[in-house]
Amino acid sequence: MAVVKHPTGNPTVLRQLRYGNVERVLQVLRRQGPSSRADVATATGLSRTTLSGIVGQLLADGVVTEEPAGPPSGRGRPVHRLTLNPRSAQAVGIEVGRERITVAIANAAHEVTASAGTHHAQRSGAREQAGAAMELLRDLAAREGIDLAGLGGVGIGTPGPGDTTDRRQAVADAVSEALDVPVLADNNTRLAALGEAIWGAARGAGDALHLTLSYGIGGGLVAGGLLFRGAQGAAGELGHISVDAEGPRCWCGGHGCLEQVAAVPALLRAAGRRSWERFTEAFAAGAGTERAVVDRAALAVGRALAAASSTANPRRIVLGGEVAELGPVFLGRVEGAFRRYTATRVHRGVELVPAALGERSGALGALALVFHESPLLAGYATAEAVAPQEDTAIHAS
Amino acid sequence: MAVVKHPTGNPTVLRQLRYGNVERVLQVLRRQGPSSRADVATATGLSRTTLSGIVGQLLADGVVTEEPAGPPSGRGRPVHRLTLNPRSAQAVGIEVGRERITVAIANAAHEVTASAGTHHAQRSGAREQAGAAMELLRDLAAREGIDLAGLGGVGIGTPGPGDTTDRRQAVADAVSEALDVPVLADNNTRLAALGEAIWGAARGAGDALHLTLSYGIGGGLVAGGLLFRGAQGAAGELGHISVDAEGPRCWCGGHGCLEQVAAVPALLRAAGRRSWERFTEAFAAGAGTERAVVDRAALAVGRALAAASSTANPRRIVLGGEVAELGPVFLGRVEGAFRRYTATRVHRGVELVPAALGERSGALGALALVFHESPLLAGYATAEAVAPQEDTAIHAS
Repeated sequence: MAVVKHPTGNPTVLRQLRYGNVERVLQVLRRQGPSSRADVATATGLSRTTLSGIVGQLLADGVVTEEPAGPPSGRGRPVHRLTLNPRSAQAVGIEVGRERITVAIANAAHEVTASAGTHHAQRSGAREQAGAAMELLRDLAAREGIDLAGLGGVGIGTPGPGDTTDRRQAVADAVSEALDVPVLADNNTRLAALGEAIWGAARGAGDALHLTLSYGIGGGLVAGGLLFRGAQGAAGELGHISVDAEGPRCWCGGHGCLEQVAAVPALLRAAGRRSWERFTEAFAAGAGTERAVVDRAALAVGRALAAASSTANPRRIVLGGEVAELGPVFLGRVEGAFRRYTATRVHRGVELVPAALGERSGALGALALVFHESPLLAGYATAEAVAPQEDTAIHAS
Repeated sequence: MAVVKHPTGNPTVLRQLRYGNVERVLQVLRRQGPSSRADVATATGLSRTTLSGIVGQLLADGVVTEEPAGPPSGRGRPVHRLTLNPRSAQAVGIEVGRERITVAIANAAHEVTASAGTHHAQRSGAREQAGAAMELLRDLAAREGIDLAGLGGVGIGTPGPGDTTDRRQAVADAVSEALDVPVLADNNTRLAALGEAIWGAARGAGDALHLTLSYGIGGGLVAGGLLFRGAQGAAGELGHISVDAEGPRCWCGGHGCLEQVAAVPALLRAAGRRSWERFTEAFAAGAGTERAVVDRAALAVGRALAAASSTANPRRIVLGGEVAELGPVFLGRVEGAFRRYTATRVHRGVELVPAALGERSGALGALALVFHESPLLAGYATAEAVAPQEDTAIHAS
């Protein structure tokens, strides 16, 4: 099956309209348990024809099963009941990061049932990486007794800007050949933002910003629980907010970008060091140079987050990556600058929090991507992520 | 009927799910013209029960009418046909700006059928302003032969930050007493962003940023054709992006805000002038002081738009207000700075354009707010604004 390329623009609203009915059906099964078609039709308000089409697809995908409710009574056909198939994996998320491959599996109820990771040689080719990921996935599924048939899709996150890179495409193609399901791929940092929004530090926040401060600086914007991409698929790439009007040209085409000031290589350069381990040791010991370099970076990070928050007004801001892991001194200075340079009504309700998912964030985000955007599953997980308390209202028409 | 307060957060996604079915019904009537209930049921895939509830509400609201398709044939009940009622006003938008009141009316097919404006004394009370707006509205409706019964809602835009101010609430309450319909109110600049997105310079762009450079600086963020508010209702308030780390404290609580550098009062102060008319004359004549002041403001505007675009990645940026009306020299410098301080992939696909709706922008935005968010009408106009070419796909389930 072909790799699903991300359209630019923000297709999620349309997708939700299109797949809202599928989600209604699944929601009824999640909440009411095994149900007859008549019960599901009543609970969803869907016509028999529409429901029949949806159930047919869900049965074919192995997402639901249909069995007689009891022994035939002799009068007419026995009543059948639809049930979610908990042993069918619904989605797989894979992150092929700079040093690690991580995979995660979620079931039909959108629970993450298993995950595993392994180191890989950074210089291996896309095909080798895809092979290693598939091996890891198959071992994990076998160990946990999970059936990989009927998958709703595989999400893949890799480093690199934008929606597609050659390497990302090659990994996606290889996985697509191995498993006959839709494959969706995106930048791993942006997916980390989505993962944290669904399962991690931004869970329940709805609107959130994510910033990963590592060897590069990436980010993501989550709006109403969904990944927001923007017109060119570059929304949330906060590492390329300019923080220095006099700064040099960046590889991205801008000038004075945050990444040029606050990523690991920039900090090392400013402190005249070559090892991040040595840098963090010196910083922890209170060395003047490292403290000053980190202060400057924290001010830049805080100002960039201030500008981004004045635009998107998030409820939560999640900070991850090696630089964020410098700890409370760094985060405190970031927060101080952030609050100084935002309107009170923007910063009053915002929390800055460390990332919570660690090495699994990219793989979990890739998993969420499948739930949100796979043609087979889109919309499944969405409504709950947006506002669990309003679920019943969705059924009203 | 009570005034509808805006919930914080981004409720549009949920609203779309809830009201998607209503929009499907209206879409069929807009496209197919007069249709039987059976035809509408087939075209929408809705069950008879769901359709019956929707049609009942639309009939009660005067949005559709139902009449026999021809003389009774003697065999059973005559077939009835549902028709959109083009003479019923569907929504009213009102802007009570600093100097003007503007009203606009749209019909059931979401066409703006009439608008009118009048100057008002800036110091008059909220109740007097609401009274003047109602008088203007009733005169306009009478002149154009528009029936104000069965309104889906009234949208109101007034100056002032945030979702609610005391004055805005008072105007909304007074209008709500006069017309028994839902009243929705918001900041007029944010509504101008929505108006430009639906009917003006950002039409068809989907994702757009709006910046009004006037005596204050306001803005708005449109995502997928919908107003995006963010967690505290402050998304898109680009006038309070900090552009000067050393800048003084702003009334908003931030420091070095764009508004402190590039709004009309800031330009006058920097040039030592008291009259905007004199300032613009001097600028047009090439006076060195005014040129330098405008250059500095343009750089700040460009940098703020760069940061906002790195966050939200819009397809179009709309610039309105007195300062934008300085013309191509100013706009050219803004664009130069904007492109210098953004990644190539962010600025490559972006157009910066002047606002197109002039004095009507706020009232038209208020109108769009009713279509998007009134409990009676929410979702009606949305799908078309997002992506006309995908309309048919919405019907798929």
